[in-house]
Amino acid sequence: MPARMGIAAPANPEDSVDPTRPLAKAVKAAFDSYGFGQGWTNRADEDRGRQIVLVQAMAAGEIEQFLTRNAITGALGPAPVNGAPLPHLSDSITALVGLLDAKAGSHMSCLVAVQRGEVQFLSARPVQVTAAAELEAAVDRVNRKVWSAQNAVSRVDPTRLTQLLHPRLKSAEGAAPIATGLGVSPGAASGIIVFSAEDAARMRARGRHCILVVNETGPADIEGLKAATGILTARGGMTSHAGVVARITGKPCVAGVRTLSVDINEMVCRIGDREFHSGDRLTIDGSDGQVYAGQLPLAQPHIGGAIGTLLDWSDASRTIAVRTNAETVESAMTALSFGAEGIGLARSEHMFFSPERMVALRRVILSEDEEDRNRAINGLVDYQTGDYSALFSTMKGLPVTVRLFDPPLHEFLPRSDEDIEETAASLGLAVRALRLRLERLAEINPMLGHRGVRLAITYPEMLQMQMQALMAGVRATSETQSEPVVVEIMVPFVSTASEVAWVRDRFNAIAANSGLLRTDRVKFSFGTMIELPRACLRAGDIAQAVDFFSFGTNDLTQTTFGISRDDAPTFLAAYQRKGIYERDPFVTVDEKGVGEMITIAIERGRAANPALRIGICGEHAGDPTSLKFFAGLGVDYVSCSPYRVPVARLTLAQASA
Amino acid sequence: MPARMGIAAPANPEDSVDPTRPLAKAVKAAFDSYGFGQGWTNRADEDRGRQIVLVQAMAAGEIEQFLTRNAITGALGPAPVNGAPLPHLSDSITALVGLLDAKAGSHMSCLVAVQRGEVQFLSARPVQVTAAAELEAAVDRVNRKVWSAQNAVSRVDPTRLTQLLHPRLKSAEGAAPIATGLGVSPGAASGIIVFSAEDAARMRARGRHCILVVNETGPADIEGLKAATGILTARGGMTSHAGVVARITGKPCVAGVRTLSVDINEMVCRIGDREFHSGDRLTIDGSDGQVYAGQLPLAQPHIGGAIGTLLDWSDASRTIAVRTNAETVESAMTALSFGAEGIGLARSEHMFFSPERMVALRRVILSEDEEDRNRAINGLVDYQTGDYSALFSTMKGLPVTVRLFDPPLHEFLPRSDEDIEETAASLGLAVRALRLRLERLAEINPMLGHRGVRLAITYPEMLQMQMQALMAGVRATSETQSEPVVVEIMVPFVSTASEVAWVRDRFNAIAANSGLLRTDRVKFSFGTMIELPRACLRAGDIAQAVDFFSFGTNDLTQTTFGISRDDAPTFLAAYQRKGIYERDPFVTVDEKGVGEMITIAIERGRAANPALRIGICGEHAGDPTSLKFFAGLGVDYVSCSPYRVPVARLTLAQASA
Repeated sequence: MPARMGIAAPANPEDSVDPTRPLAKAVKAAFDSYGFGQGWTNRADEDRGRQIVLVQAMAAGEIEQFLTRNAITGALGPAPVNGAPLPHLSDSITALVGLLDAKAGSHMSCLVAVQRGEVQFLSARPVQVTAAAELEAAVDRVNRKVWSAQNAVSRVDPTRLTQLLHPRLKSAEGAAPIATGLGVSPGAASGIIVFSAEDAARMRARGRHCILVVNETGPADIEGLKAATGILTARGGMTSHAGVVARITGKPCVAGVRTLSVDINEMVCRIGDREFHSGDRLTIDGSDGQVYAGQLPLAQPHIGGAIGTLLDWSDASRTIAVRTNAETVESAMTALSFGAEGIGLARSEHMFFSPERMVALRRVILSEDEEDRNRAINGLVDYQTGDYSALFSTMKGLPVTVRLFDPPLHEFLPRSDEDIEETAASLGLAVRALRLRLERLAEINPMLGHRGVRLAITYPEMLQMQMQALMAGVRATSETQSEPVVVEIMVPFVSTASEVAWVRDRFNAIAANSGLLRTDRVKFSFGTMIELPRACLRAGDIAQAVDFFSFGTNDLTQTTFGISRDDAPTFLAAYQRKGIYERDPFVTVDEKGVGEMITIAIERGRAANPALRIGICGEHAGDPTSLKFFAGLGVDYVSCSPYRVPVARLTLAQASA
Repeated sequence: MPARMGIAAPANPEDSVDPTRPLAKAVKAAFDSYGFGQGWTNRADEDRGRQIVLVQAMAAGEIEQFLTRNAITGALGPAPVNGAPLPHLSDSITALVGLLDAKAGSHMSCLVAVQRGEVQFLSARPVQVTAAAELEAAVDRVNRKVWSAQNAVSRVDPTRLTQLLHPRLKSAEGAAPIATGLGVSPGAASGIIVFSAEDAARMRARGRHCILVVNETGPADIEGLKAATGILTARGGMTSHAGVVARITGKPCVAGVRTLSVDINEMVCRIGDREFHSGDRLTIDGSDGQVYAGQLPLAQPHIGGAIGTLLDWSDASRTIAVRTNAETVESAMTALSFGAEGIGLARSEHMFFSPERMVALRRVILSEDEEDRNRAINGLVDYQTGDYSALFSTMKGLPVTVRLFDPPLHEFLPRSDEDIEETAASLGLAVRALRLRLERLAEINPMLGHRGVRLAITYPEMLQMQMQALMAGVRATSETQSEPVVVEIMVPFVSTASEVAWVRDRFNAIAANSGLLRTDRVKFSFGTMIELPRACLRAGDIAQAVDFFSFGTNDLTQTTFGISRDDAPTFLAAYQRKGIYERDPFVTVDEKGVGEMITIAIERGRAANPALRIGICGEHAGDPTSLKFFAGLGVDYVSCSPYRVPVARLTLAQASA
């Protein structure tokens, strides 16, 4: 039965149930109109019991809509909805809006009926606005003394902060866009082209940036959208699936690029008259919808205004330190600007990623000529010394945790025919002999192979080289700054206390030899990653040989579940679809499995060494749900990627409150 | 000072310290001869306190040597040493030999002095003889009522049993030996040629047989000798390093092949005028020293005589069942002849190893034509049905645990160019398209990839196929034998209870559908491998969905330590050399880490499901030290390779006593 409108309101309560009066009559007619026995079940009583007739008061006049606060600036309203002109409202509404904002503590969308200048308030419901507007509103409420600073800290969703931390194009000068679409989610992104959710997930698992290029997206692409750094679509606009998901997840997205076509079978896309293959690079700017070929330099966002204020407040109630994972001066500076309180993970192997250092490292690994090899080692020491010194200087007295060389050696060896021939020539080896050595170094499951502390023990000269460079870097920095250099040496991929003790003995000898132990301008500590189940179980033994534990939750998740993150995309999506896993354990830490491992390790470690410091340096340290769990375990610090530092600061403040 | 002989024995105790008498005079001269202050430390008192002068009674007459028992047959002696003629001894010695054997409980080597028919007993020390002789002696002592049967069971070292279980050449007819050396350790072996310890370890990690071919061996080769199935050396004889180690470890060895030369740099060996490369196959017979090209069929040893008697005795005190890992009728029969009480691990994927099945399996994995794919699936069901039925019939009512398909799919896919082209043609796919699919199926860390239960969940048609074949095989056998068919379905590589529940639901539906649940001629149970750390921690949840746990200690060791067994050889030898690991955790279970994982799982599993049966099916189930540990955990059964069944029977009898 359609709605019947315009029934006169009952004069008193009795009238509303008097069947001769209009309202009760209309209600009865509505109930009767359901017509039992005509297609419903036979259990008429039950059905009758479930009937509802809705009685709704009507407002007279023009229905108008407005927000309690501006959707962009967060300023207290009334404010227009979706750019529509603000209706004319009497001044009395301002007081109401203020009251409503204070009670609701969120942007509200209000409906009013306006008749002859008189405003009748109908309804108000909360609306989601941009993170920037939400934050401005929160800070404004504190300024108006509606909230305490702590209120504001506790009410902002940390996951939304990432939206404010978009990179942007440093300068598009000299670069001509190859296409223009709609900028449907702000920020710039640069990366390798992928055409499927699976490939996006693979790239992400390898820590590489990618742009997902598709004709259009649907609910099945959600994993790919989450995994991609940026999204480019041929069809769709602001309200397209890709646009909505991109804004929610805070990823740059350019949609509706009409000159784009994707051929998924051939793994190729065309933009205008240019052809791009999987693996080529693109840059997109989701603020203005421009698309560029190749990789353009990006500038990083800064913290200031409302977000700066909120984060400052949050620091007051936070008890767990927030560090960052960084090894370059540039990313260390970004992290510092976001409030990082030290480096919790400097992956020393990143120092070998430049071509000339790679050549030297290959010499160390492959050369059979002792002298040649030693020369290469000395060269590597010099390179790294400068890097370390620059990093320590940047961090000005804040702690820097240096993880010893971790990945399997063969990751640094030549792969292409050309590269192999070149390397063989430079080493004075026959190509065939080099190929044979490379084959022997190749591994079936490199994640579980000859890496981490195993390299330090089997190639002590590599360890020696790293330590030497570290000592030289420490010395150089300590001579130029007034703050002490605080260095924490961290051993990766440990499964027994004997491995840690072995490395510690060598570290102690080298440190003692350096003379740096006798100055208070340098503070060394020695610790280990805990990232294998056995290390968790034997944490009691291991803790006696170290000053700190830092949990590598990525590897610990891989080994606890027996899942290679690189290979997981082929089944993880199906697992989530079928409800086998509630969520991706590489995004949010698995409390019941990996979490228990960490809990056991902390208990045993602290029991054996009460002074033990505990950190977390896996990617989970940037995920709010995981951070809350870690806070509950009483860790001393977390270390996340620079862009996640604000998220961690806010989440940990909420967890400490 | 050299020994001074022939000093007259003192007539009474006082004479021995009277410095005027010959003995005490000689002792003093000896002490004085050390010459303090001449190159020793200055602490003369301390040095003096450490001085020793040895006074040794001399025997007159001819010194003769004999054994208390025969070194080959174990018959009670006196018996000759090393084939030397037995000295003439008076009859009185026989009683002494019997007494000595009863007291010592081991073969003893005796020294006597014989002068004018009179025998003076000088010394006796235990000697190690072949396992066969030791066993015969043990049974003989029980027959002579010197020992109880239980004494005999407890005193034989289980590791030595394997020496009695050598394969031998089925028939060398038609095969001409390409060389002959010395048979220095009995038994025949066939396998792939390797030239280094590392390659031998690699092969062993992959479960493949290999023959280590070297010029000669030294202490550095011990790991390779242990890992190889057989050993072939160019130099050396019965007492060479290789021969000694081979006999101790019970491996066939042919030494001193003069026509053999190994060029380790070129990775090639020459035997006479033939050249063999790494990867070629050889067969050796360590009993007669013959060497054959290629792979000759081997016949398996039988249990009987002393070893049969001892194992029968051992069964009386054993409380833990011994099953075997087998999937072919042949290996099941071997295991039954060794006393296996069921199959604890039938790796269903082994049923796809023949070329025609491989083609069908590739069709299932790769075909894009639904009909073609279904035909291939049906074909696979037929193949497997026959295999299952034959296996169940062989085991005649003993339990058979079938593990669902476990390895990553791409292990079954074409690799060589030729193979890829052929497969593409048979599937009607373009070679390029097939290569693309193959690339997408390749994994970075296959051990932790798309395998085990993950395959069942993402490819439900594979699970369906396996279940259908299983039901058909059960039905076929149940119709032809009077014993019930006892089948245990086992899900591999589980990390959550939800995975097990998902498979169990499908199994229940298929089993209910088959009608086989309504007959008491078939007994089904449903269980899971526990081989991942997370499965150990969540054992309480998982136990509620299953009837049994079977610990896969190989994978559990890999994930607990974060070590890929395939890749471990590059650092494991160094680890043992440097004392980082006391022993290879893939040979003897790591009690402190992996062992605690198992302990946690058993506790939580039994608490949640008191009827839960517990088994062990990793390779550790054939290692005596590990077996003793498992016995202490109160497991219900172990399952090891057929040749290890006698070792497990004896070890578990000792552990139960």
